Amino acid sequence: MRQTSVINDLLSTITDTRIFGERRKPRRTSRADLAQLIESLLTGRGESSSLERAAEFLRAYRDLDSAGRTFVFRTLAADYGPEPERLAAAAQAYLDKPSGTTAKDLQRAAEPRRVEIFRRLNQVTGGTQALVAMRCELVERLGNHPDLAPVDDDLKRLFAAWFNRGFLMLREINWQTSAAILEKIIRYEAVHAITDWNELRRRIDVPDRRLFGFFHPRLGDEPLIFVEVALTTDIPRAIGPILSGNREPIDPQTATTAVFYSISNCQDGLRGISFGSFLIKQVATDLASELPNLKNFVTLSPVPGFAKWLKEEAARPTSAVDDTTRGLLEELADNWINNTAQAKSAEAAFGPLTAHYLLEVKDNNRPRDPVARFHLGNGARLEQINFGGDVSPRGIASAHGMMVNYRYVLSEVEKNHEAFVNEGKIAVAPAVTRLARSVKIAERTPSSAPAQLPPPSATSNEKKEHKSVTEGTRATTA
Amino acid sequence: MRQTSVINDLLSTITDTRIFGERRKPRRTSRADLAQLIESLLTGRGESSSLERAAEFLRAYRDLDSAGRTFVFRTLAADYGPEPERLAAAAQAYLDKPSGTTAKDLQRAAEPRRVEIFRRLNQVTGGTQALVAMRCELVERLGNHPDLAPVDDDLKRLFAAWFNRGFLMLREINWQTSAAILEKIIRYEAVHAITDWNELRRRIDVPDRRLFGFFHPRLGDEPLIFVEVALTTDIPRAIGPILSGNREPIDPQTATTAVFYSISNCQDGLRGISFGSFLIKQVATDLASELPNLKNFVTLSPVPGFAKWLKEEAARPTSAVDDTTRGLLEELADNWINNTAQAKSAEAAFGPLTAHYLLEVKDNNRPRDPVARFHLGNGARLEQINFGGDVSPRGIASAHGMMVNYRYVLSEVEKNHEAFVNEGKIAVAPAVTRLARSVKIAERTPSSAPAQLPPPSATSNEKKEHKSVTEGTRATTA
Amino acid sequence: MRQTSVINDLLSTITDTRIFGERRKPRRTSRADLAQLIESLLTGRGESSSLERAAEFLRAYRDLDSAGRTFVFRTLAADYGPEPERLAAAAQAYLDKPSGTTAKDLQRAAEPRRVEIFRRLNQVTGGTQALVAMRCELVERLGNHPDLAPVDDDLKRLFAAWFNRGFLMLREINWQTSAAILEKIIRYEAVHAITDWNELRRRIDVPDRRLFGFFHPRLGDEPLIFVEVALTTDIPRAIGPILSGNREPIDPQTATTAVFYSISNCQDGLRGISFGSFLIKQVATDLASELPNLKNFVTLSPVPGFAKWLKEEAARPTSAVDDTTRGLLEELADNWINNTAQAKSAEAAFGPLTAHYLLEVKDNNRPRDPVARFHLGNGARLEQINFGGDVSPRGIASAHGMMVNYRYVLSEVEKNHEAFVNEGKIAVAPAVTRLARSVKIAERTPSSAPAQLPPPSATSNEKKEHKSVTEGTRATTA
Amino acid sequence: MRQTSVINDLLSTITDTRIFGERRKPRRTSRADLAQLIESLLTGRGESSSLERAAEFLRAYRDLDSAGRTFVFRTLAADYGPEPERLAAAAQAYLDKPSGTTAKDLQRAAEPRRVEIFRRLNQVTGGTQALVAMRCELVERLGNHPDLAPVDDDLKRLFAAWFNRGFLMLREINWQTSAAILEKIIRYEAVHAITDWNELRRRIDVPDRRLFGFFHPRLGDEPLIFVEVALTTDIPRAIGPILSGNREPIDPQTATTAVFYSISNCQDGLRGISFGSFLIKQVATDLASELPNLKNFVTLSPVPGFAKWLKEEAARPTSAVDDTTRGLLEELADNWINNTAQAKSAEAAFGPLTAHYLLEVKDNNRPRDPVARFHLGNGARLEQINFGGDVSPRGIASAHGMMVNYRYVLSEVEKNHEAFVNEGKIAVAPAVTRLARSVKIAERTPSSAPAQLPPPSATSNEKKEHKSVTEGTRATTA
Repeated sequence: MRQTSVINDLLSTITDTRIFGERRKPRRTSRADLAQLIESLLTGRGESSSLERAAEFLRAYRDLDSAGRTFVFRTLAADYGPEPERLAAAAQAYLDKPSGTTAKDLQRAAEPRRVEIFRRLNQVTGGTQALVAMRCELVERLGNHPDLAPVDDDLKRLFAAWFNRGFLMLREINWQTSAAILEKIIRYEAVHAITDWNELRRRIDVPDRRLFGFFHPRLGDEPLIFVEVALTTDIPRAIGPILSGNREPIDPQTATTAVFYSISNCQDGLRGISFGSFLIKQVATDLASELPNLKNFVTLSPVPGFAKWLKEEAARPTSAVDDTTRGLLEELADNWINNTAQAKSAEAAFGPLTAHYLLEVKDNNRPRDPVARFHLGNGARLEQINFGGDVSPRGIASAHGMMVNYRYVLSEVEKNHEAFVNEGKIAVAPAVTRLARSVKIAERTPSSAPAQLPPPSATSNEKKEHKSVTEGTRATTA
Repeated sequence: MRQTSVINDLLSTITDTRIFGERRKPRRTSRADLAQLIESLLTGRGESSSLERAAEFLRAYRDLDSAGRTFVFRTLAADYGPEPERLAAAAQAYLDKPSGTTAKDLQRAAEPRRVEIFRRLNQVTGGTQALVAMRCELVERLGNHPDLAPVDDDLKRLFAAWFNRGFLMLREINWQTSAAILEKIIRYEAVHAITDWNELRRRIDVPDRRLFGFFHPRLGDEPLIFVEVALTTDIPRAIGPILSGNREPIDPQTATTAVFYSISNCQDGLRGISFGSFLIKQVATDLASELPNLKNFVTLSPVPGFAKWLKEEAARPTSAVDDTTRGLLEELADNWINNTAQAKSAEAAFGPLTAHYLLEVKDNNRPRDPVARFHLGNGARLEQINFGGDVSPRGIASAHGMMVNYRYVLSEVEKNHEAFVNEGKIAVAPAVTRLARSVKIAERTPSSAPAQLPPPSATSNEKKEHKSVTEGTRATTA
Repeated sequence: MRQTSVINDLLSTITDTRIFGERRKPRRTSRADLAQLIESLLTGRGESSSLERAAEFLRAYRDLDSAGRTFVFRTLAADYGPEPERLAAAAQAYLDKPSGTTAKDLQRAAEPRRVEIFRRLNQVTGGTQALVAMRCELVERLGNHPDLAPVDDDLKRLFAAWFNRGFLMLREINWQTSAAILEKIIRYEAVHAITDWNELRRRIDVPDRRLFGFFHPRLGDEPLIFVEVALTTDIPRAIGPILSGNREPIDPQTATTAVFYSISNCQDGLRGISFGSFLIKQVATDLASELPNLKNFVTLSPVPGFAKWLKEEAARPTSAVDDTTRGLLEELADNWINNTAQAKSAEAAFGPLTAHYLLEVKDNNRPRDPVARFHLGNGARLEQINFGGDVSPRGIASAHGMMVNYRYVLSEVEKNHEAFVNEGKIAVAPAVTRLARSVKIAERTPSSAPAQLPPPSATSNEKKEHKSVTEGTRATTA
Repeated sequence: MRQTSVINDLLSTITDTRIFGERRKPRRTSRADLAQLIESLLTGRGESSSLERAAEFLRAYRDLDSAGRTFVFRTLAADYGPEPERLAAAAQAYLDKPSGTTAKDLQRAAEPRRVEIFRRLNQVTGGTQALVAMRCELVERLGNHPDLAPVDDDLKRLFAAWFNRGFLMLREINWQTSAAILEKIIRYEAVHAITDWNELRRRIDVPDRRLFGFFHPRLGDEPLIFVEVALTTDIPRAIGPILSGNREPIDPQTATTAVFYSISNCQDGLRGISFGSFLIKQVATDLASELPNLKNFVTLSPVPGFAKWLKEEAARPTSAVDDTTRGLLEELADNWINNTAQAKSAEAAFGPLTAHYLLEVKDNNRPRDPVARFHLGNGARLEQINFGGDVSPRGIASAHGMMVNYRYVLSEVEKNHEAFVNEGKIAVAPAVTRLARSVKIAERTPSSAPAQLPPPSATSNEKKEHKSVTEGTRATTA
């Protein structure tokens, strides 16, 4: 009844620590022993003894300190690639006589030896979970240890196989769900923070709110990704009323619109394996079948890169930002959103510029804005630009309060997606196109030139954030 | 509530046919269209359009006749290996400058292109099931089409990853289990046939009988392998009383012995992926924890190769079969087991020879008998030789009625397994060793020399059967 | 995991016997000990010791032979009514001084003492099941032992409370359901027998067939009542095509009609507690919500009393049967349904007479036909008369092959039900009314007068069958 | 999927109000309409129309204000008892001619008419829950409206039938349990308050803590009663270490002792229906089977009446309290427990007096202390007296910090229970008997006589609390 496993132990260390403080004295494993342990994972010939050694390695890993774990990763990187002699011989053999057999031998020889190690670790109860946790820690080290990249690459490829869509299970999360899962929802919500259990309840225990997540048979109660949905009677322009603790729920049968107002990836260890597109489409399909009156499936999404881009753009000599707006940006006081005059000017200026930013500002022929890239890549269309959509400090700081709606028209998603992937073409509502067209690129007046012009978003935080989203990591989306 | 999928459709064709006759006119796909469809599986860049094409391919495959399916397999074999130019270039690049990067490029180039096809098919709902079904049909064609072997090899490697032990779920099967699963148990039982629902009930709806199977999240109600267990008060010497419909069940709390009397692999498409060892050990562990009085975990197993070997051995000039036994073999009438005198002679002769056969007759330093190879390879020990253990026509024909018990001593399984795998050493009870030692190899008297001496079991059926068992295919084990 | 209980033991005696023969020697309890055991059920003051004694009594009862069980029932009847002195005193006290207190005392004194016994037996695990089984055996004895009627009456009143609608759970039964339940469905089907598991599968494992049952938390896998549903594209006129093993299933989304073609009560021990009306209405509501194209909810029902009534009616001097029909009835050969001329005459004659029989022939202002009484009482309307609806030997013998459809129009059910209950008014389709009106009551010609005229169906089997259905016992309905 | 019902609506009013404020305008029903609505519950003849009217009544009740609800209860009390004329006639008929028939008629006539009303309300989805909620409100009115007592009495008798032990389902509550249930556990904990979700987690998500509750099929997620268990290695003397947030959990397999440290009744509407005894015994039995090392099953219980009794006793002329203790009581400062000298004196004095209080101070031959009465009545024995067991302000105020252990020896529980129920005999450990014997009853010295001597606990709060516990209401037990 009470399942236990090496890895539940491993992961629960954190948990129990939170409850009762540190409780177990880590046993130290010497570097030499560690190296031997890793090697033993490959040398055993028997299937079940291999299981035993895999469990032993995971226990040892659990008790390592940070340096010990780095040692493990570096050993896997340095000593467990393909065997050079064997690979060279196989390459030569293929070149000498290309055939099915020599090709197959070459394929075998080219596989890094650590791949088999990961496969064996994956067999232990809790092994998948442990590997996901290990990749988390590996990724954190990539900056300082670029030599670890091939290890990350191998893990990512294995994860792509193990976490392929066929294994994902959609579950509705509500007040009937176990506390073990709900606790993780609170922890993983990355867009609009859930402050406590009462706030959670307002999002899952009301007739016009839903929450769905993808789960995987080997990760148990750990969600991979989840989306929060509001059922409404029109396309919302602001997040405040959606999250309000003081609103009147509606009868879901009267709802015409399902709003995906928050999507959170949960597993940093699965960075680069994308689940969001499948999730949104499956939830939309299921809701459409449950509630026949639903006509619109839209997001209410942030524009995380807008403020940063706008500042840079304003500083360029030839710029989409005119002098009036440049002046406005300099004048804006802390609380400008409540200053009627400033708000009015801001609305006139920011709407068109947001449209321009999302449709025209691109890196590698893809929108620079990570959230735009995600939804447009899924086949959604850019539907509506909302001034004052998110007036929280974070919303003001990152996007001057702008939010947008992306719309999933189920019958057009496939077509939009292909056009975006193949031609970089963006599906967009005519009104938004008009807004974007109203922006003119012009030379700025000399007086306002800044001293230093930053390069276009190089190695900035915002850039990193982009990357994380398209690769499907835990990130703020929607 | 009522799930449907391309592949449930595909598989249910058989089912529905059984119930209502043929119901769907297969739509024909031309060879050219088929080839294009396969190619399209790789060319699409969008993730979700790729899903759509995969489903389309599976529907087309479902409606193909046998020749059409052969065409698909041959296309995959001929046109979807690694790209020769790319592979040659990558091999040369690595030889020119061995590095992490060139090794990785070489690895990518060496992967057959069909592997990505299989991965994409696996993403569709029901895709795993379809691929398992496809491999079934592929395996049937290997004899006539040896060029298909690499395709089989690629599928087997993918299955080894997807069906690794971490994904297997152990379920107890009893009278509370759904008819959908029970029906498959009846169909898949390969050792001691279950003739109808009443016979099934005698094996799962009584306190001293158990049935456990491994399931996989993507195969739904399809068992991968199952084992039938009898709880007894001593180590049984014959299968008849175990299967009897006219016996007194015992209170499981009084049982000292768990007898694994039948193990059946269910999925021909998973041939070569072994589950049996894990299953037996997990079931033994679980039963030991539920019923603390259980002390012995044994099989009651057939000796499928004994009669065949004995016949061959008797024909050799230098032989373990002495003249008396040779005479007995020639004399044995159809119903000899009920002939007291003959039975007595047979018991004296066959016991030692069975021990000899299992312990001494080997291929590649492994016991020739497939069931022995399976259990001894799992770490069991050869415990007891039973004359008259299976007096059914099949038991008499294949093993002169002999059965044996293999014993799983949980604390020794690991050690036995390693000794067997590494040194070919067989764990065996002293009494069986003594039996085997009583057999003398001697020259036969000239008079009884046969005209033709067959080579030692070459390309015989029995040899094939061996292979199938060690590779874990659907087979008669226990 | 493996639940056991006194009563599972009790009930499984039968089961196990079927599998392995008798296995337990009944321990005999003397009459004196039995009487004492019964008395002890009331005398214990402690709650938990009372549980222990209740279990002891049930074990003793299990091992009694038929005479012993009769003794138990007679003891409960004779010695465990209200206490006469106490009741007389309480009655007098109330008459002397009517008040809340004396009324309450009188209520307590009037309760038969066995009611408390039944309540205590009901507390044991498996107790409800045991009491239901006991009432079965009690009911069988009522004919010879009319003195047991008050015991039956008390049990029935308790069951009405324990099995009230609030406790009933609707479950869909399909091929995913456990064999334990499916086995009971096969056993309990009382209208169109399910011959084996394949026949069962044709009724539950096809997209256009459904089966739903009511269950009760204390009876576990025992269904109380179930209904079988066919999804069709029009209102069916005959049962043969519905049950055919050789038909083409339809897509349920295209179905316009849900046909309730069989309703079976399962528990003889719950005779007189009605579940059928709730079941039909809940199933109709659920199906309507799952399949929006469903417009018609109809039965395909037998007319069990028609042939018997017709024979009696034909023998009356003033009769609804005219001379032509009387002649036809005498002429009908065994296989008349296949005789084109006779079948044609029969169709012309039997349609109107069936309509007349169902609408005009009444006992106590209710239709004499039990199935009509059941469905019309539920608020259905008599929709259609079907000649040749059931040409099985049973259908020919009981109703000359006639079947009818009752139709449940959800919005009118309540109104029809009230009109029927309060005024005896029958809801009926105009076409059926016209059919009935075409029947003329006339004096028969003297020549065909029978020697003896039976009284109108008094104490006949058919009358008994009526009663059983309206009281909701296990019976052939639909 | 999303169940709704009249009564979920009814009950969720509270819930939703907490989340979103008042949302529904109550519709007013006039007194005349209410009276008519109640009457209509009995007059309808049709079964399903009766359901409809019951639902209508419950909706109307939901929207009533407090006065309206009082009106409903008074109407049920005044107008829906037995019919006087009918009852008088039946009483007379029985007296004239006592027989089975007249007795049965009398029984029917004696049943208050409201009983049938409650039965019909119980049939509606959510009806049981509504009736339990109604009884809550009825009980609150009993003080001011003694005329409502018969209504309460009828409901209680019906509840005793509907909530009999056979329907109760034991569930383990842990971190896998739904938030809907956990939330109620937080709300209903009545002994040692659970302040928030983290505190809850410390009690259910650790290996050495368990929580079990009884549920009822008709109350859904509403627990009836639950018990919290600590697994320990010895019999604990104080509650502080059990509840500590800073302790080291133990491996449950090493535990020898299961401590029931809190038992809470949850449903005020089920006051008087006792579940606690069954719960403790079933949990003890289950734990014993799961953890074979468990030897002791004990409570750690408060002595809620001790301080109050001691104060009264000290004031009596002839008293168990000697002058030293009397002096101590007057001297005790607020924080005496931390005053070494006072604590030492207190320990010497209070231990014997607690033993005396529990063993010798009785009302109606039962211990006056409600918790003692509950556990001793269940068959537990008084095992150990603990000074300083609960040093919280509440523990000091009500019992000078004393706690006790009651011990459930499963093999003796039945015997103890019978002796207690039949003879008032208390099972007690010898050491406690010795403690009690060390107390001498003696005349106090005149100087300390109080002005007024209170009567022995008459109509005091403490007395009320006693009553509530033995009757099994929501109460502080353990």
